[in-house]
Parts: sequence; structure tokens; C-alpha cells
Amino acid sequence: MDPLLKELRRNRVLWLLALVPVALVAAKLIPAAHTVLFVLSVLAIVPLAALLSHATESVAEKTGDAVGGLLNATLGNLTELIIAAAALRAGEYALVKGSIAGAIVTNTLFMLGASFLLGGLKHHVQDYNRATARLHAGLLLLATIALVSPSAIAKADLVPGAALTQKLSVALAILLIVGYGLGLLFSLKTHREFFVGAEHAADGELVWPIRLALVTLAVVTVLVALVSEIFVESVQKAAETFGLSELFIGFIVVALVGGAAEMAVAFSAARKNRLDLSVGIALGSASQIALFVSPVLVLLSYVIGPKPMDLQFWQGAVVMIFLATLVAAFITSGGRSAWFVGVLLLLIYSVFAFTLYLWPPPVQ
Amino acid sequence: MDPLLKELRRNRVLWLLALVPVALVAAKLIPAAHTVLFVLSVLAIVPLAALLSHATESVAEKTGDAVGGLLNATLGNLTELIIAAAALRAGEYALVKGSIAGAIVTNTLFMLGASFLLGGLKHHVQDYNRATARLHAGLLLLATIALVSPSAIAKADLVPGAALTQKLSVALAILLIVGYGLGLLFSLKTHREFFVGAEHAADGELVWPIRLALVTLAVVTVLVALVSEIFVESVQKAAETFGLSELFIGFIVVALVGGAAEMAVAFSAARKNRLDLSVGIALGSASQIALFVSPVLVLLSYVIGPKPMDLQFWQGAVVMIFLATLVAAFITSGGRSAWFVGVLLLLIYSVFAFTLYLWPPPVQ
Amino acid sequence: MDPLLKELRRNRVLWLLALVPVALVAAKLIPAAHTVLFVLSVLAIVPLAALLSHATESVAEKTGDAVGGLLNATLGNLTELIIAAAALRAGEYALVKGSIAGAIVTNTLFMLGASFLLGGLKHHVQDYNRATARLHAGLLLLATIALVSPSAIAKADLVPGAALTQKLSVALAILLIVGYGLGLLFSLKTHREFFVGAEHAADGELVWPIRLALVTLAVVTVLVALVSEIFVESVQKAAETFGLSELFIGFIVVALVGGAAEMAVAFSAARKNRLDLSVGIALGSASQIALFVSPVLVLLSYVIGPKPMDLQFWQGAVVMIFLATLVAAFITSGGRSAWFVGVLLLLIYSVFAFTLYLWPPPVQ
Repeated sequence: MDPLLKELRRNRVLWLLALVPVALVAAKLIPAAHTVLFVLSVLAIVPLAALLSHATESVAEKTGDAVGGLLNATLGNLTELIIAAAALRAGEYALVKGSIAGAIVTNTLFMLGASFLLGGLKHHVQDYNRATARLHAGLLLLATIALVSPSAIAKADLVPGAALTQKLSVALAILLIVGYGLGLLFSLKTHREFFVGAEHAADGELVWPIRLALVTLAVVTVLVALVSEIFVESVQKAAETFGLSELFIGFIVVALVGGAAEMAVAFSAARKNRLDLSVGIALGSASQIALFVSPVLVLLSYVIGPKPMDLQFWQGAVVMIFLATLVAAFITSGGRSAWFVGVLLLLIYSVFAFTLYLWPPPVQ
Repeated sequence: MDPLLKELRRNRVLWLLALVPVALVAAKLIPAAHTVLFVLSVLAIVPLAALLSHATESVAEKTGDAVGGLLNATLGNLTELIIAAAALRAGEYALVKGSIAGAIVTNTLFMLGASFLLGGLKHHVQDYNRATARLHAGLLLLATIALVSPSAIAKADLVPGAALTQKLSVALAILLIVGYGLGLLFSLKTHREFFVGAEHAADGELVWPIRLALVTLAVVTVLVALVSEIFVESVQKAAETFGLSELFIGFIVVALVGGAAEMAVAFSAARKNRLDLSVGIALGSASQIALFVSPVLVLLSYVIGPKPMDLQFWQGAVVMIFLATLVAAFITSGGRSAWFVGVLLLLIYSVFAFTLYLWPPPVQ
Repeated sequence: MDPLLKELRRNRVLWLLALVPVALVAAKLIPAAHTVLFVLSVLAIVPLAALLSHATESVAEKTGDAVGGLLNATLGNLTELIIAAAALRAGEYALVKGSIAGAIVTNTLFMLGASFLLGGLKHHVQDYNRATARLHAGLLLLATIALVSPSAIAKADLVPGAALTQKLSVALAILLIVGYGLGLLFSLKTHREFFVGAEHAADGELVWPIRLALVTLAVVTVLVALVSEIFVESVQKAAETFGLSELFIGFIVVALVGGAAEMAVAFSAARKNRLDLSVGIALGSASQIALFVSPVLVLLSYVIGPKPMDLQFWQGAVVMIFLATLVAAFITSGGRSAWFVGVLLLLIYSVFAFTLYLWPPPVQ
């Protein structure tokens, strides 16, 4: 347990772990205090996500490069997956879709933009591996197009029967997972030399012993699942209290909370002039959500959801995902950054956030 | 006739030529057997397209660079043009538009993607002339925008009278042909040095004597026209039998059949590590369809069609053309390829194909 | 006054200044002759815009680099701003929005395209600073996305109350102005070394003494305001006479007239093989309209308009702005040009112009 204690001392965010039991107890004692439960669960997820991320990396470190890369790639967005699965079980499909779209947009605009800004405030100009960024952006661009095309093609012409939409969604989900698997084969095996320099582990982080890491992984996964349920149960009422739409919560809040741990790593790497790592985390995480998490959720909905979930997003989300991906691809194709590039990405994120905040689209 | 026999021995696809008379006779004897006629005509077009392509190149070879380039550029998509003209005469405008849109999407995603994949399975990383690819992609991007803009601008605001749509379509058709002509002047005359390395002729192919080439060109054109008519007459009923929409047939089947000959050349070049040629054929063919074939069909519709055809596509086609062009421009701007790039292009093609298959849009 | 006379002798366009008093007098004597007044006011604005531009540059030259750059950047599109303000006061919001969208599209397609074409007719291939162009195009891409997103996101899902639209427009206007201010800080102060070579002053132009420049600036601003009022009053009736929609006038005519002075500089620079300057003027002007002029007009509408103006454009304009920006970003990312690149940009501009001409969207 010693490394865990060291980590607790090193990383102040983990002190929020104290809120995990508070949230669990509060959910039993005051189940009607939705706003309190919402805030507690949001704050409790942040340190759990950090632990989950650290444990995953430690396991990955021990199991060798290929398996480790696979683990990192698959469990990297475990927090988002667990939260979305909890929402899925509760039938909150607007929240699930909002958090998928939000995670893609938040990673490509906010995480990338804040990395560029924080790095740029310390370094005049920052160069990063253009080839790596291109490949990442290409993956993301293609993943996103695969994700948004059905909505874009379908919305245009007719409202088909739900059965057809569902059939198409399953077919596309399988296609995306195949693409994801081949992408892993490409980046971890046949062409891994192009992806060096974008490993996940931050300097100075301790690698835990494998047993501690595995136990942490198991225990924290359960805890995230429990807290996520509180979150999902309280979010609707809390959203009403704050005057926010459920979609805004999914799009902005869940995405920021679920990605908090990865953001910390990306921002710190940017300040250390290791933008390769920041760009890799931001775009890699976004493409993982698009290519892996979202199809898994579609397939999961058949098992744990009250009814199957499809892949059709509301059109505003399609526009935002598409624009965010386009901007990320354009911006990163130069391989060079300065503070204003970050400002512009954050500005676009603000445009989206403002629009969503003031203009809540109908819950689907 | 000796070179023709040699070609027959070299190229097994040409054995399918035996099906040409079978198809023609069957159309007389069993005019009601739509499914049989459909399959026969599709199979008969493939070898004819290959002959047409070879004859065109042989003529081009003999007539010197500038005229030859012009011939190659103008007759390169003769098969698609003849099939579409047959559909035009029959008033099957959904099929015509479907095959135009399908040819652009199939060339930029399927032909390019399969070239990258086949080349990538043999070579670890393949580089190609970035400048050439950029120019080609630029031409294509601009051609596509010219093609989709009217639909995109128009759909948004009002359904105008058919007269206005028609007037606009003719104006744009003329504009596109002017652009195409100036593009030939640019690539064959004033700036031809940028386009070297992307010549059409494959290694090891025999150049026919000019007389044989001209006769073949004339005879095969007539045969393609005859078989195309059988194809167009049978397609609707056959589509119903297979449970496919006419648009799916136009989009996927016609595009694959019409481009089969060029695909063979592009794929073989990719395996020989001559990706310049593959990229040139795929993107060049797509931009030729957009800039030359489609406006010619609009103008032809005044002469041979039951009523004039306009340039407005259904919105799903606009989205697919636009996304395909965007992806091709992004992917080729790097000038470097590996197998997974091909996989991703094919994946996007599959997304479109699945969507069209499961989700037939209304016939326009 | 000597430099002013020299300028009059050097620059023949200024002879049109004689039409300024003619227009002002005609507006009093024959207020009902709308077509005459329209033509007179259009012709009178051209030389005034040239004087305004020259005076701004002379002041900028004298006040040192940072302040001068700021002045140039802020007053560079003063003509467009004054015309739009006159339209705003008259409540002609369709004209205002049309001229904003038109200025962005005209600068990125027509000014850039004609520069490439004119330069390319004289020089075989022209290279320009890719880094500068990238930064400019990036600014423009992001500005445009910020501008079009609300329309794109909003149109999709519901027609919200006017109050919400208005609130969002003000929030976004402030966001855009913040972005514009930070952009100036970036390009004039912290990273100015990336923007050298794109200064506004053309060779051989005389720099005026500061006093003359300031007086000219003040007097001409008033004159442009007066003539703009005649223009705005006559445009609607004149449009009817010519059979044009008000939007076409705003989109094409106002944009060409308002940008005439800058175009003269950009074209002459292109012929002198100084494409850096041409690209900088064209894209810089477009991004200034998007990031500065349009939000200022939204805020101004609260002070001088009959009712507040929002930032929502009709969807056709959104599509055109988006495509124009995308094309400009793609084309300039190569840093190399030839005549055909210009032809293609002009072709796309013609597509838009034709579509607008034949297909007038409903006045909003």
C-alpha cells in the first residue's frame, strides 16, 4: 500500500477520494437531495478517474509493450464508459449520446486548446511530430465521419422506421470496432515506429506493483460504477435546478469530469514542452470514444438497456463533432503551435458551450 | 488481329467477352427474364470496358503527347458515359444521378483505398508525389464543390420552380466544361511538368497498331451502348428482385462495373509501388466524372432525354460526395501511405454502402 | 495638398471623386430616380474607399509599427463598416448580412483567385510564405466557424424564440471581439515575426503627411457615410429595376465596391510576384470582416438600429462562407500557385454568383 500512500501525498486531487464514501452514504440517507448528490458524485468521480488511469498505466507498464498498449488503449476511457453504461441502464439515452459527442468535442477542442495555450504561455513556439499528429488526426477524421455519416445522410431525406435505424446502427458499430481493432494492430504492431513519443505515462509518476494496480483497477471500477449511478439518478433533477438541459450536462460536464485525469497529464506534458504527448492523448482519446466506446455502448444497450440504442445523433451534435474534427485536423497538420492557436480552439469550444447553454435542443 | 489475340491470352477478364453475344441474344429471346439479363449485362460490360480503355490508350500513345492526353482524359470514362446516356434516354434520372455520385465516391474511396491497401500489404510505407496528388485533389475538391453547391445552397431555403433549377443547371454545366477545358490546357500544356509520372499506360501492356485501336474503339463503343440498354431496361426489375433500391444499384454496382478496367490498372500499379499512377487514376477519374461527364449528361439530356435533366442531387449524395472529397484531399496531402490508410478509406466506403443498402432514399 | 494632387494624377480611379458631389446633389434634386442614384453612389464609393485606404496607411506609417498595425487592422474595412452601418440604421438587415457574408466570400474567392490568376499569367509558378498563409487561413477558418456555428447548430433542431437568438448573438459578438483583440496582440506583438512580409503598403505609393492623412480620414469617412445613405436608400428599388434580389446586391455588388481599393493593391502585388502581400490582404480582410466588423455591427444595432440584429445567417450564406473558407485553407496550405488555381477559385465564385443570381433566396 506504500505506493498508494505516496501517490496520495503527491497528487492532491486524490484527497477528493474522501467524498466517495460521503456520496455513497448520502445517496442512502438523503436520496431526494438531487443537487447535493449531483455535486458530490461529480467531485467523487474526478479522483477515481485519476486512480483508474494510473492503475491502467501501471498494469500496462508491467505487461510489455504490445499488451500494455492494448490495455491502455482499451481502458483509457474506462471512466466515460462506466458513466455512459450507468446512463444506458437507466435508459437516459440523451445523456449517453450527449456524453459521447461531448467527449469527442471536449477532447479535440478543450483538451487540445488548453494544452496549446498552457504550453504556449511558457514556450514561444512549440513543434511536435507532424507525422504522428497527422496519423492521429486522420484516424479521428475518419472515425468521426463514420460516426456522423448515418445521421447526415439519413436526416436529409426521410425519417425511416426505427427498425432500420437500429439495424444500421448495429452494422456500423461492428464496422467501427473492426476498424478500431485494425487500428490497434497498425499502431501497436505493424507500424508502431510512427507512434513512438506518444506514450501515456507522465514523468515522475510512480509505477505501481502489478498486484496493487490490479486490485485498484477492480475496486475503483466498482466504485466508479456505484458513484456513476448516483450521478445518473441525480443529474436530471439537478439539471432542472441549475436551469441546464440534460444535453448540456452530458456534453460539457460529463466530458470534463470523465476526462479530468487525462487532461491533467496532457496539460503537464504541454508545459514540459512535450506536445507530442498532449496531442496524442487529446486526439487519441477522442478517436477512442468515437471508434470504440460508442459502438460498445450500442452493443451493450442490447444487454443492459431497457431498449436498444441507435447511433443517430441530433443534428447539432453532428455539426459540432464534424467541425471540431475538421479544426483539429487542420490545426495539427502544421506540427507547430503558439499560445493563440490554443486561444482559438478554446474560443470555438466556448462558442459551442454558449450555444448549448443558451439554446438547449430538445431532449431526444 | 494478332495483338488482340495476345491481349486475350494475357488478360483473363476478356474471356467474359463471350457473354456479350449471350446477353444480346438473351435480350431478344427472354426479354422478361430481368434478373438474368441484369447479371449478364453487368458481366458483359466489364471486359468491354477493359477493351475500351486499352484501345483509348493505344490511340493516345500514337497521336503524340498533347492530343493523346486529351483523348485519354476525354474517353477515360467512356463506359460510364455510355451507360449513363442509355439511362438518360430511358428517362431513368435517378439511375443517372446515382451513377455520377457513385462514380465520384467509388473512385475516391474504394479505388484509392484498395490501392493503398493492396500496395501497403506488399510495401511497408509508400511515398508518392505530394505535389501531383495535391493538384489532383485540389481539382477534385473544387470540382466537387462546384457540383454540390447548388444542391447545398438551394435545398436550404426554398423549393424553386423547375424552370429556375434547369436554367441554373445549364449555366453550371457550361461553367464546369469551361473549367475542365482550362484544366486540360493547364495539365497537358502550360504546366505539364507537374503531372508527369501519372500517365495511364501500365507496364507490360502491348500498344496496339492505330488501325486496330480505332476499329476496336468504334466497335466496342457500339457494343457497350447495346449492352447498356439491356442493363438499363433490366435494372429496375432486377433491383426489386434483389430488394435493392435503384439508387443503390446506380451508386455501387454501376460505379464498380464502369470503373473495373481502371481499377485493375490502379491496383496493379499500387502493388508495383507506383502509387503516383494509382492516385492519379483514382482522383483523375473522379474529377473527370464531376467536371466533364456530369455536365455533358445535362446538356445531352436536351437532345436525347424525354425531358431535361438538372444538376440537383438528393442531399444524401451531396453529403457523401463532399465527405469523400474531403477525406481524399486530407489523406493525399501527406504524400505517404500504409495499409491502414487504405483500410480506413474502405471502411468509410462500407459505411456509405451499408447506409444506402439498409436505408434506401426515395427515388427522385 | 500637394501629395493629394500627385495621388490624383497617379491614380486614375480617383477621378471618379467628381461623382461624389454629383451623387449628393442628385439625391436632393431627384430623390425618386433610384436607379441613377444607385449607380452614382456605387461609382462614388470606389474612389472614396481608395482614399480612405491610403489615408489609413499613411497614418499607420507615421505612428510606428504596433499602433500602425492596429490602425490598419481596425480601419482596413472601414468602407464596408460604414456602408453596413448605414444599412443598419435603415433597418435593412438582409442587406447588412448579405454584405458581411459577401465580403468574406468575395475576399477569399474573388480577390484571392484574381490575384493568383493575374500573378500566374505573368509568372509560371509563384511561391509564397506558407507559414504566414497557414496562420492567416487558420485565423479565418476559426473565425468563420465561430460565425457560422450558431446558424448551423440552431437551424437543425428548432426555431427558438427571438430573445434567445439575440442573447446568443450578443454573447458570440463579444467572444469574437475578444478573439480579434487577442489575435492582434498575437500578430502585432508576441509573434509579429511570423507576419512580416504581409504589410499593407504598396510600393511606389506616397506616404502622406500625418495632418493631411488625418483630415482626409475624417472628411472621407463623412463622405462615405453620406453616399452610403444614398446607396442604401436607392438599392431596394434599383434591385427591383434590375431584377436582382437585395441579397445578391449585398453579396456581390457591395462586397466588390467596398473592397475595390484593397483589390487594386492585392492585384498589383500579385503581378509584382509579391503573393505574400496579396494572400495577406485577401485572407486578412476576410477574417477581419468575420471577427471584427460583424460583431461590431451586432453591438451597434442596439444603438443605431430600429431593433437589435442577430448573427443568424440564412443557410445558403452559411454554406457558401464555410465552403469558401475551406477552399481557401486548402489552397493556401501548399504555399504555391499557378494560373489555374486562380481560375478554379474564380469558377467557384461564379458558381455562387450564378446560384444567387438565378435563385434569389427569400429576403429574411
